[in-house]
Amino acid sequence: MTETKASIADKRDALSAALGDDLVLTEADDMARYCTDWHGDVTSGAVAVIRPRSTADVQAAIRICRTLGLSIVPQGGNTGLVLGGTPDEPESQIVLSLERMSRIRNIDSDDFSAVVEAGCILAQLKDAIAEKGMFFPLALGAQGSCHIGGNVSTNAGGVNVLRYGMTRELVLGLEVVLPDGSVFDGLSTLRKDNRGVDLKQLFIGAEGTLGIITAVSVKLAPYPDHAATALLALNSLKDAITLYRRARRDCCDLMSAFEFLPPLAFTLAKEAIPDLPIPLRADYPAYVLIEISGSGLVDIDDLMQRFLEGVMESGLVVDGTIASSSSQARNLWLIREGMNEGQAKRGTHMRTDISVSLSQLASFVADAEAAVKQALPDCISVSYGHVGDGNVHLNVMPPNGATPEERHDRIHKAKTVVNAVVDRYQGSISAEHGIGRLKRKDFEERLSDTKRRLLIAIKRAIDPDLLFNTHCQINLGAVIDEPD
Amino acid sequence: MTETKASIADKRDALSAALGDDLVLTEADDMARYCTDWHGDVTSGAVAVIRPRSTADVQAAIRICRTLGLSIVPQGGNTGLVLGGTPDEPESQIVLSLERMSRIRNIDSDDFSAVVEAGCILAQLKDAIAEKGMFFPLALGAQGSCHIGGNVSTNAGGVNVLRYGMTRELVLGLEVVLPDGSVFDGLSTLRKDNRGVDLKQLFIGAEGTLGIITAVSVKLAPYPDHAATALLALNSLKDAITLYRRARRDCCDLMSAFEFLPPLAFTLAKEAIPDLPIPLRADYPAYVLIEISGSGLVDIDDLMQRFLEGVMESGLVVDGTIASSSSQARNLWLIREGMNEGQAKRGTHMRTDISVSLSQLASFVADAEAAVKQALPDCISVSYGHVGDGNVHLNVMPPNGATPEERHDRIHKAKTVVNAVVDRYQGSISAEHGIGRLKRKDFEERLSDTKRRLLIAIKRAIDPDLLFNTHCQINLGAVIDEPD
Repeated sequence: MTETKASIADKRDALSAALGDDLVLTEADDMARYCTDWHGDVTSGAVAVIRPRSTADVQAAIRICRTLGLSIVPQGGNTGLVLGGTPDEPESQIVLSLERMSRIRNIDSDDFSAVVEAGCILAQLKDAIAEKGMFFPLALGAQGSCHIGGNVSTNAGGVNVLRYGMTRELVLGLEVVLPDGSVFDGLSTLRKDNRGVDLKQLFIGAEGTLGIITAVSVKLAPYPDHAATALLALNSLKDAITLYRRARRDCCDLMSAFEFLPPLAFTLAKEAIPDLPIPLRADYPAYVLIEISGSGLVDIDDLMQRFLEGVMESGLVVDGTIASSSSQARNLWLIREGMNEGQAKRGTHMRTDISVSLSQLASFVADAEAAVKQALPDCISVSYGHVGDGNVHLNVMPPNGATPEERHDRIHKAKTVVNAVVDRYQGSISAEHGIGRLKRKDFEERLSDTKRRLLIAIKRAIDPDLLFNTHCQINLGAVIDEPD
Repeated sequence: MTETKASIADKRDALSAALGDDLVLTEADDMARYCTDWHGDVTSGAVAVIRPRSTADVQAAIRICRTLGLSIVPQGGNTGLVLGGTPDEPESQIVLSLERMSRIRNIDSDDFSAVVEAGCILAQLKDAIAEKGMFFPLALGAQGSCHIGGNVSTNAGGVNVLRYGMTRELVLGLEVVLPDGSVFDGLSTLRKDNRGVDLKQLFIGAEGTLGIITAVSVKLAPYPDHAATALLALNSLKDAITLYRRARRDCCDLMSAFEFLPPLAFTLAKEAIPDLPIPLRADYPAYVLIEISGSGLVDIDDLMQRFLEGVMESGLVVDGTIASSSSQARNLWLIREGMNEGQAKRGTHMRTDISVSLSQLASFVADAEAAVKQALPDCISVSYGHVGDGNVHLNVMPPNGATPEERHDRIHKAKTVVNAVVDRYQGSISAEHGIGRLKRKDFEERLSDTKRRLLIAIKRAIDPDLLFNTHCQINLGAVIDEPD
């Protein structure tokens, strides 16, 4: 024990000597926020937190960590939900925070592109782009804190995926520092470039296991200055899916969000935001929050009006309200966001991030909720999500007075129950949040031999010494230590 | 020589014995069309052409080829433009044609997805999908012959990229047979699936160097039953780019094509299709073919009308014609297609497939055409392409009476001249056609050390024995034979 401590102190000294005190944090208090996850559920420690100011600093950090045998956990805004950016071995890992590399290098509205450093906060990037009349479509709850580099590393999703795609589809180019310390300079803004294997794809969604993303070039769209938002009540989730299909056709490519909510959303939102106005009766079986948006000559309000007339006339939508101002639209979105806060206020609960095929979404939710009800009759399921992507967050809340142990037990059981239904539907246990350390075991259990072999072969090819984000995604350490 | 011939005959016998005569062609006449490229420019031979009927057949073919030390050149519809799907070593390669694996496994309009075998002809897939009221957006000149598997392997582009993206963005899942004979089963139709590194991305655009794609699942959109097409005349290519920016904003995400053409397009199209109606004066400096399309409630004709009123009033567009029927629209597109045929009729010429950033497209074309004019005053440049993607096909035609040797000499010089301008603009020498064998040297010369090392590491990791598509993209043989 004394030996390890001494050795950690030596390593800290060596890091400071190599990189300068300005880049290196080693005090427990200073490191705490980098070593605790977004939900505050899991706290660990690290040998140090390194905060580079430049790509060259990242290269220097990798070199000294390699020499000292330290593994590197890259971290963006630390808003991940699967423990991919926080350390789990305090004596052998450092956290590399990109927060100081936050410069927007260029926004070119003539070229529909922007180039930005990894540590730029998403909302700041979106705002700077909007000031130039342009739009960066990535939109998620954490956008006031998350970094664009983390978004790319985790291939973040969010509410606009159905129109604009996941982060992957918004990336034009990347600058990445590799485990050997060299820089992959792929920071092009070309929209079409078909020169061989597209290497940057490897780093998108790899959660820092193959490289450290230091800068990103992204696609922009014209700013959609017209938006129409409506909250609609329906008789079932099945009807919500029918409505989605109709909306896709009727509104063409102009639908930018289509979220479904259960009636419980209103109760939960009110618990978080007591004075939030609820503009509809709260006892319909299902609700949809829909947004249509666009720029230029298309009359978005008229399109929403005619769409709603049609679907109300056909009986598919039984009640609804259109926001008549942007503040009303904001309040409708606050129901969606407040629902999440309300769940958090009720205490630790099981969160999932599931996708199934769109045509099976309604029956999946019915089956999974029934399975939870049978196995855990005192728990409450709440399912909501991005219908058009087949993405549902089916969360399970233990009863209000449950002790931490009881909660832990319920959450553990609920996960097993729900994952079994996901497997039956050939769904994904991670539609948008990634794998990180939290879902690694569940991920590994579901990997085919071929996929596992490929993942290991690629990791070995790029990071043979397992320097980057060990224990994230798959536990390569254990595998690679085996004889061939 | 006798020894080699004997050995080839032995290998042919071994292939037939292992796979059955039905799968194996070995007669030169039978193999000719598989060993000659789309343009008929380059003819080679092969030990055999293998035509599997199933994924299991592909696995069996790989096993026997491995035993015999034969390298495998996968081939789709053989419409590639860069010699990626035709052999170049008659005594050590076999062609693996996917043409018999052409079944559409499923079209699910409720799920906005389809699953199809690699050898299905793109136009047949598009038609079958259209019959179900759905739309597969990939659209290119070769669609009557090319295969979906080849489209994915080459990450094909085409005229609808600006709205729907390259093939990569249309792929939901892949089934791939790997060099070790195992099957990567990633044929999911999930729209969101963020479980770790997205392995399928490796095979998209790899031109068969890492795996043989045997089936594909793709994203569908609602069929755009309304389309408006117009041909517009402008004072310059620069104005065409300004027009594109305005169209992106005014028509929001409903613009599906925006092609620019030079005045020479009409002459060339007439040479190929003498009775083609030309609805505009043919002496303006630049032309644009624009298509707006959509389904449902958006009034596309009205949108086109109002857009054109605005841009003609502002003087940006100086003349124009809107197709008033689908046959008129077809005729406008025939100008675009006839222009290509007309170039082919004038004899062998230099074809390019360049991208630069959108904001630099006009000055790039001016600079590159001027450089060609200076170096090769007797040649004619013709530049056209997909403006919104920054993609220009700048082709150079030798004078009409040139001998084959003179043509070859002009083409060689023109390539050097144009590529130098591409490099100055940090553009791509392959925006959509890929690298294949034709552009390998030009590609390799422009690779950074880091990218080269990564490409080699990945190839080594997945295909250590260099079984798949040797000499395509990079000449790994030469590199891997070197001592480390």
